[in-house]
Amino acid sequence: MASKMTTLEDLYIDTLKDLYSAEKQLVKALPKMAKNAQSPDLQKALQEHLRQTEGQVERIERIFQELEGSPRGKKCMGMEGLIEEGNELMQEDAEPDVLDAGLIAAAQKVEHYEIAGYGTARAWAQRLGYDKAARLLQETLEEESMANEKLTKIAESHVNMEAQ
Amino acid sequence: MASKMTTLEDLYIDTLKDLYSAEKQLVKALPKMAKNAQSPDLQKALQEHLRQTEGQVERIERIFQELEGSPRGKKCMGMEGLIEEGNELMQEDAEPDVLDAGLIAAAQKVEHYEIAGYGTARAWAQRLGYDKAARLLQETLEEESMANEKLTKIAESHVNMEAQ
Repeated sequence: MASKMTTLEDLYIDTLKDLYSAEKQLVKALPKMAKNAQSPDLQKALQEHLRQTEGQVERIERIFQELEGSPRGKKCMGMEGLIEEGNELMQEDAEPDVLDAGLIAAAQKVEHYEIAGYGTARAWAQRLGYDKAARLLQETLEEESMANEKLTKIAESHVNMEAQ
Repeated sequence: MASKMTTLEDLYIDTLKDLYSAEKQLVKALPKMAKNAQSPDLQKALQEHLRQTEGQVERIERIFQELEGSPRGKKCMGMEGLIEEGNELMQEDAEPDVLDAGLIAAAQKVEHYEIAGYGTARAWAQRLGYDKAARLLQETLEEESMANEKLTKIAESHVNMEAQ
């Protein structure tokens, strides 16, 4: 938070910039995660989420068309740390199913970070009267929740397969 | 991740250490957040969550009784970043309801970070056959989810009061 945070509009814009940086970092990180994933299901889920993430970046750009300034100029440290955790895991000599379990865990932390951020941003958009932005943020929020549920299902199906 | 991550047990222990550090940092941060909160509802919610968090620290200590080693020795960078965000906000000259909105947003990021971490840890405990640990982790997970829902309700009641 480099700029002053005295009004709700300040907080709203700061949160959107944070999410924008998070999504841009994720667009760069997801191809490597998908490439390292061992299970075809997980590979496919990460590739699909890459396409969704590109759409989410565009939604934030559309939201900034009715705000002053640009979504750029802030680095989301939270996402940087989460991606770094995933990178460290991929450098380890882990067994395939352990690597997948760790990648799913890293991806779910990412999803939860975004669910918290978009939930807050949507509530503030409503409060500030940005109805169109609130709808766009709701769309992204639903995508993030579904992506998180899909990862849980993949994690559970792994367990089930091993138990068979 | 300083130690080798080759088995699911390694990942499980690392995740528990990460959560332990997160909770310990939160025990230190919550009193200041509660003191700075303007609405009595938010103050009370943060104080209650402090007591819960102390219990969650103890649960992780109990889980480590059946594992090798100690829960100590890892610093959760994710939580450090989230708490730092909250600290920066409290140094700003924000209006009371803006400060509360920002504190709720920070606390919900914290809750989501923990929900992701505990959800993963519980799944891995089950997979590794640590049934007692899985039950303890489930208890904490439910507390975190309820704490998150309570924060959402407080945020919404703020909006409603302003609209009246």
